[in-house]
Amino acid sequence: MIKKVGISILGLGVVGGGTYKMLTEHREFYKKIHGIDICVESVLELDRNRATSLGIEESKIASGIAEIISNPEVDIVVETMGGIEPAKSYALSCLNAGKSVVTSNIELYCKYGCELEKTAKKNNCGLFYEAACVGGVPVVRTLLDSLQGNCITSVMGIINGADDVEGYDAQYKLSILLSLAFHTKVPYAEIYREGISGITPTDVSYADKLGYTVKFLAIGKNGAKGIEARVHPAFIKNTHPLANVPKDGNAVYITGDNVHDVMLYGSGAGEGPVASAIVGDIIFCATSSEYRYSAFCNGEKGENSAKFISNFESAYYI
Amino acid sequence: MIKKVGISILGLGVVGGGTYKMLTEHREFYKKIHGIDICVESVLELDRNRATSLGIEESKIASGIAEIISNPEVDIVVETMGGIEPAKSYALSCLNAGKSVVTSNIELYCKYGCELEKTAKKNNCGLFYEAACVGGVPVVRTLLDSLQGNCITSVMGIINGADDVEGYDAQYKLSILLSLAFHTKVPYAEIYREGISGITPTDVSYADKLGYTVKFLAIGKNGAKGIEARVHPAFIKNTHPLANVPKDGNAVYITGDNVHDVMLYGSGAGEGPVASAIVGDIIFCATSSEYRYSAFCNGEKGENSAKFISNFESAYYI
Repeated sequence: MIKKVGISILGLGVVGGGTYKMLTEHREFYKKIHGIDICVESVLELDRNRATSLGIEESKIASGIAEIISNPEVDIVVETMGGIEPAKSYALSCLNAGKSVVTSNIELYCKYGCELEKTAKKNNCGLFYEAACVGGVPVVRTLLDSLQGNCITSVMGIINGADDVEGYDAQYKLSILLSLAFHTKVPYAEIYREGISGITPTDVSYADKLGYTVKFLAIGKNGAKGIEARVHPAFIKNTHPLANVPKDGNAVYITGDNVHDVMLYGSGAGEGPVASAIVGDIIFCATSSEYRYSAFCNGEKGENSAKFISNFESAYYI
Repeated sequence: MIKKVGISILGLGVVGGGTYKMLTEHREFYKKIHGIDICVESVLELDRNRATSLGIEESKIASGIAEIISNPEVDIVVETMGGIEPAKSYALSCLNAGKSVVTSNIELYCKYGCELEKTAKKNNCGLFYEAACVGGVPVVRTLLDSLQGNCITSVMGIINGADDVEGYDAQYKLSILLSLAFHTKVPYAEIYREGISGITPTDVSYADKLGYTVKFLAIGKNGAKGIEARVHPAFIKNTHPLANVPKDGNAVYITGDNVHDVMLYGSGAGEGPVASAIVGDIIFCATSSEYRYSAFCNGEKGENSAKFISNFESAYYI
């Protein structure tokens, strides 16, 4: 039997539009393979031309968030608006109405993820954010459901988005990756951040001569003294897998006590890769009848109890 | 509230022993982080010295499979014996007794996975095999739960285990990876296989001069004409991420219509990495109250209906 799943998409930018396209183009495929009929019931988009140019009927363009919240056909809301408000209020309203939320919004999840998750839990619905955290690189699911038996000691990655010269985007993403990896909230404000504007051609040429590559790296380590977390340019030995990540690619390199080293490589941004992460979350949500929540948001399990260290040794060489 | 989860391990070789160690060393960690108390209730191992040298009490060494099947404290059985029999009969008996099975046995899962899965489904229990398919590289979960919204067009990997000179191990693994990726059963017998014994130093030196690296590659492609699947040595351009995989590492490179290229890199074998995959599956199983099954085992969804092509073009160059 095919289960019907109603979707609403908030914001039809590159990511929201890509998600709409992926869902509509693959609708028959998902019916056949996953046994679910994923139907976009409505969209929230101020630019009606953008919506219609994607082939969306006028009748599916909602007049406001209230229309989406009150629509019993909408099971899952995709938040691809970006920014904090109104995305936060909208997401909370949807969760409070019992609708699961899938978001690609890293700033929102980084700053208000625990509030959103508690609201989801209270209303017995799901909150999914793979797309928010390095897009097409399936690192959230890997940390939650594959490496969760390990004590993870280190996470390093090339995770900055396009034009993230100052590293804010990388700082947000690292906050979530480390919270998942270390099972304790790692607030972004505890992460040392240094942009790439200080890098000169001389640095790059010296690195090259010494057998290193310069990359904008996000680094987190969990040791006996506490957690260190930082985002800055670094010299990586050419033999390290992170040094060989192509220019437009992203990658996360995780070290656990049993699994040893694992690297996930892919595209952290762009219409297709981020839509892939959103749709992966939609299908996961639609084919589960229960939801699990991140341990790091539970105060009893260590929220804000971690110690952070800022005395980094040999910080700029990997 | 802490949920108690009883485990039995069949076979205490490198992987079974590693799993025992990981579970016992991390027991408090799993209670705190995952809210479950994972307790090894019994083991099946003919070599009693091996069991006791791991610190296992005599009373936990089962006299036979019947003792494990009839023990109501055992929820999940870990099959790390290898080979077909008695592993297959034991796994089926456990599933028929309503116990979920986690296996690291690629030959068993490749040859009898669908029979095992149907038995699991019938008895409403789970069958997990991440450890069987490239060990510490979380590729099964990624295909099932992260990239499942994509039409996957290509899977390439360095997936051969230690001493797999003739490529049987890689052939088994590729069969499972392609069945998951293409949503249709890809029997291992349909996979062209050529070992590495024919590679000469001259081949390697020519590859080097031309900017290529020689790797033992597993390749699957799904196109308009059908599925092609093959395991053989290949020349990979040095700029391709697979060319830079270290000698003792494994990697799987997946291309989907939306996600584009994703690569997962890690250790496919060894005590820690394979135990990590087993324990990941145990925790996933123990924290879920429902199970999902692979679409490729469902006859209605295309079992054995795929077309296979054997006329490979430029097969040896990537």
